[in-house]
Amino acid sequence: MSYRFLKGHGTENDFVVLPDADGTVHGDLDPARVRALCDRRAGIGGDGVLRAVRGDDGWFMDYRNADGSTSEMCGNGVRVFARYLHDHEGEPYPVSIGTRDGVKVVGDAGDGLLTADMGTPQVYDATTVTVDGTGHAARHVATGNPHAVAFVDDLAQAGSLLTEPGYDHAVYPDGVNVEFVVRRGERHVAMRVHERGSGETRSCGTGACAVMVATALADDAPRGTSYRVDVPGGRLDIVWTEDDRVLMTGPAVLVAEGETDL
Amino acid sequence: MSYRFLKGHGTENDFVVLPDADGTVHGDLDPARVRALCDRRAGIGGDGVLRAVRGDDGWFMDYRNADGSTSEMCGNGVRVFARYLHDHEGEPYPVSIGTRDGVKVVGDAGDGLLTADMGTPQVYDATTVTVDGTGHAARHVATGNPHAVAFVDDLAQAGSLLTEPGYDHAVYPDGVNVEFVVRRGERHVAMRVHERGSGETRSCGTGACAVMVATALADDAPRGTSYRVDVPGGRLDIVWTEDDRVLMTGPAVLVAEGETDL
Repeated sequence: MSYRFLKGHGTENDFVVLPDADGTVHGDLDPARVRALCDRRAGIGGDGVLRAVRGDDGWFMDYRNADGSTSEMCGNGVRVFARYLHDHEGEPYPVSIGTRDGVKVVGDAGDGLLTADMGTPQVYDATTVTVDGTGHAARHVATGNPHAVAFVDDLAQAGSLLTEPGYDHAVYPDGVNVEFVVRRGERHVAMRVHERGSGETRSCGTGACAVMVATALADDAPRGTSYRVDVPGGRLDIVWTEDDRVLMTGPAVLVAEGETDL
Repeated sequence: MSYRFLKGHGTENDFVVLPDADGTVHGDLDPARVRALCDRRAGIGGDGVLRAVRGDDGWFMDYRNADGSTSEMCGNGVRVFARYLHDHEGEPYPVSIGTRDGVKVVGDAGDGLLTADMGTPQVYDATTVTVDGTGHAARHVATGNPHAVAFVDDLAQAGSLLTEPGYDHAVYPDGVNVEFVVRRGERHVAMRVHERGSGETRSCGTGACAVMVATALADDAPRGTSYRVDVPGGRLDIVWTEDDRVLMTGPAVLVAEGETDL
């Protein structure tokens, strides 16, 4: 069976989009098909699949990780999903998108950028992460996913990040994404990330939000201050608003469209 | 500008195919476009690009590496290219394909497999390659590309292969692909490969041919003996014929087709 797909990315976090408005093309979407699509050599390749289903309440982003498992949300994926709805389904910005983490609203920020409302962050106690035998103090922030944010002097201190950093399993029973952050200038940081189950990636949207929150707290910055967060795959601009929401602005690009029988 | 592409692979050596019969779509094909297409996150992703151009003498495979440079030949790519010509351009098997290494003939071997005539191998003196400080005796075989084939007891001896093995620069002034080989059974070996400029890959067609030749010489096997060569991405079956040609049989799959503006 041949079916339609698109490929896109946000700050090089890349996705296979599967149009399935009435749910008849993919049904429950077999995890084996997700793995085949995301296979970077035998398939199309991607960090995940964004299946687009339209229900009574509007569009739903059925997000799957490359290994076939489901996830609540994906901060870069939701922008790519909004780009798809705008460019291919005729939806005007701002667009409301149902996810397993609730409804997300994505608006046009101009210059090819989209802004996603990532909701209210949760801030917890300090914790510690370990890389190459060295412990680093970290801030525990939840932004849809659990994060540990460690400020370092040099991103090389993050080691190869090919192996998972050590962390407190009592604090993070389901694992954690670990971000290492350096200062680049005023209201400007750069990060590397180790995502649970994926290793080091080019970008992590919820991780960038956690980094912004941890940095704003460290700076005692007033709400509404915007931060630039550089990730290996590009740039994100993030603000923590007075009404306690995190708004993330970044690129979302669709690069190809076609048919596959994977 | 939007243009057509296909994606396919042979033993997980993957390619973006660019239809360009009369050469008007891509002209000289900008190396920057090749890099953008082969980018595994911001693009479509591939080990290389196979541009299909039809000249007075038939089809020509304009092969480019992922970094935008040209290469003479690609043993897995030529099967994928033949699959494209058969399925999408109406060419019957066997099909003759012009390459920078001369004309290659690819025929149907049944069961989804294609056989490519890889030409006459060149066998040279013994040499040595070094991994993690340990030297390994190796056979120097040229099969379109220069190879060093080292028999080992365990493929783990090849190390991570993330760094280039040491080799004799006087023997290989343009670099070398290094294959590490273990015995799996009668007329059956398995290999890992470090490709110059690419690092460890899932498969290398000319490398598998070099491995077959080195193994047949080590076995003193009569010409016409067929060997199975397992690569990380699949299986190749290779025979060195009485008229001194190497015939390689393996899969070639097209998994997607579409439009891109990369």
